Amino acid sequence: MTEFIPPSTRWIDLPSPFPMKRGGRLHGARIAYETWGELNAAADNAVLVAPGLSPNAHMASSEANPADGWWEPMVGPGKPIDTDRWFVICANPLGSCKGSTGPASSNPDTGLPYRFRFPELSIEDGADALAHVVRALGIERLACVVGNSMGGMVALSLLIRHPGIAAAHLNVAGAARALPWSIAIRSLQREAIRLDPNFNGGDYSDAAYPESGMRMARKLGVITYRSALEWDGRFGRVRLDSEQTDDEPFGLEFQVESYLEAHARRFVRHFDPNCYLYLSRSMDWFDLGDHCAEREVGDRAASQAHTRAGLAAIRIDRALTIGAQTDVLFPLQQQMEIADGLREGGAAAECLPMPSPQGHDAFLVDYERYCPAIRTFFDSL
Amino acid sequence: MTEFIPPSTRWIDLPSPFPMKRGGRLHGARIAYETWGELNAAADNAVLVAPGLSPNAHMASSEANPADGWWEPMVGPGKPIDTDRWFVICANPLGSCKGSTGPASSNPDTGLPYRFRFPELSIEDGADALAHVVRALGIERLACVVGNSMGGMVALSLLIRHPGIAAAHLNVAGAARALPWSIAIRSLQREAIRLDPNFNGGDYSDAAYPESGMRMARKLGVITYRSALEWDGRFGRVRLDSEQTDDEPFGLEFQVESYLEAHARRFVRHFDPNCYLYLSRSMDWFDLGDHCAEREVGDRAASQAHTRAGLAAIRIDRALTIGAQTDVLFPLQQQMEIADGLREGGAAAECLPMPSPQGHDAFLVDYERYCPAIRTFFDSL
Repeated sequence: MTEFIPPSTRWIDLPSPFPMKRGGRLHGARIAYETWGELNAAADNAVLVAPGLSPNAHMASSEANPADGWWEPMVGPGKPIDTDRWFVICANPLGSCKGSTGPASSNPDTGLPYRFRFPELSIEDGADALAHVVRALGIERLACVVGNSMGGMVALSLLIRHPGIAAAHLNVAGAARALPWSIAIRSLQREAIRLDPNFNGGDYSDAAYPESGMRMARKLGVITYRSALEWDGRFGRVRLDSEQTDDEPFGLEFQVESYLEAHARRFVRHFDPNCYLYLSRSMDWFDLGDHCAEREVGDRAASQAHTRAGLAAIRIDRALTIGAQTDVLFPLQQQMEIADGLREGGAAAECLPMPSPQGHDAFLVDYERYCPAIRTFFDSL
Repeated sequence: MTEFIPPSTRWIDLPSPFPMKRGGRLHGARIAYETWGELNAAADNAVLVAPGLSPNAHMASSEANPADGWWEPMVGPGKPIDTDRWFVICANPLGSCKGSTGPASSNPDTGLPYRFRFPELSIEDGADALAHVVRALGIERLACVVGNSMGGMVALSLLIRHPGIAAAHLNVAGAARALPWSIAIRSLQREAIRLDPNFNGGDYSDAAYPESGMRMARKLGVITYRSALEWDGRFGRVRLDSEQTDDEPFGLEFQVESYLEAHARRFVRHFDPNCYLYLSRSMDWFDLGDHCAEREVGDRAASQAHTRAGLAAIRIDRALTIGAQTDVLFPLQQQMEIADGLREGGAAAECLPMPSPQGHDAFLVDYERYCPAIRTFFDSL
């Protein structure tokens, strides 16, 4: 998958060995990143962005790489995260296949890809890797750490495991713990991949590739990243033209089916299935409260209190959380929970609910709402 | 699958040939049903229940079959649908494998199961079959037709295609048209079954059975039949005991995963995959508005107006629609739309929103709320 690593990528070596939270260690691991703007002399204008599961580090265009990035309207000169003021870093997650070390990387012990021999990956490992990136770039304290979706989990973990590493936090569509409905969705995505006869216990090849499992997983992802409300307006019950439909029994017939198919086709060969499994499971395992206490086993109230204690243990000056009212995967209640918990810990923290129809993906689509909100927050720092 | 047809089942033969809306005809087809209570001399106390996709006709216990039915608390002497007063009929859907003729039935032309040689099945065919059942039982006009979920679509189709067939209508978690998010879910369920290597274009056997495809489809069904809210309280982040987990990498770990697995295991060999595909697709195709006008291709407002015209063309005295606020598959807006449209057609129609946390399945679980509501409606008829 090296063809999907942008030419503007740079790397920071992690300490070798790099110990993993659930056991095992990585040798010669590294994190892929890009930067925008300049670190000032006091090194106090740095902003770190932790992305979701699938993006690479190319968040925005730059001189080194003029291609649009995945958060292009948000980051750049004069944009909401203004690179004339901030030194902005985006790191590809540990465990990914888009530059950072992960299950698709070569295992130095064998010279072959790790695959299932990659140690169990947790959100906390990703956070520790980010802490190393920050220090390696000569930064003592970030002005702000931003986390989107899975990156919101990583950012919270970074804040609690490395106290003082950031003055402020922006959490976009993130969560302080995985909830059972989302666990169920991710579990089913992983099952689709594992059950593909070509998956072969992780030992697939380009020729025998778990394409249908990945397609199913991605379609289920896209269904839960968006919302019924948006799709009613966007697709309705519109059928495909007769030349777009296939003749197979039970083949594509509605526009919404062809939209899913197109999304899936773009994804299946662009993301490594083992990396997908590892990153997906790391989210299920995550509960910020585990940092402070043994794993909770009580009722709903006990579970909330457990996570809340983790949030309240974070020391930070300012925080903003943003969630879409139509997000079913990381529902708005989770961004409210983060803001409430950080406030309990002493931060000036707010949650901003967005009426965006686009669901979990709204922060990548509804720039009309998200750009002004994020600009206001950064201007106030 | 004949072992899943209750011994109390009776049958009514459909006219032979029975023409299907999208082409083709059935020979020697029949509908499985059960009844409770007695038809009075005026034949004006009959209530017909059209169930969802998967249930058989055994809705409640009876002398002929004392086993609990799938709507046991709702139907019986002194219950909300009181069989001391009403003659209650429940029919297994056309296209099912639970007694009525469907793709798993024997094709009289070949003596072999129809499988993909079953003609295309639409909701309207199921409605026409029910109209025949009603007439065959000597009933001119039903006191009420009840439809749950898919049955809600069938009931609306019955009302518009057979004017005067019922005086009142109760629609529970139903819809007057399929929306794109639900189409996407069902399309993915069908894809999971079709992609199973054992599916073999519909020509599977008991020995080579599309078990993993059916398991995936059922898990996705259960995820969308319930709600995130309910599962937060019910499962939280509770893990399985170590003896319940499997050793396979990425195997079950959380209680919610094992709940899904148990549900899936109970379903996969109890429902015929081809029947599942046919019934599932019939829902996607359904738009009540198609009865009055050519298929709509306009924007959201045009699409709503199209369906609304269908609802307003129904002539009926009384109607109640009930929906759960947490239903993501047949969202509450759809039950509101039905009530609004029927009112436009002259009915005294109301929509009752339920704060049940159980999502689409609430009518099968939250009897504390649904029993009194349905009792009040039937008492008022």
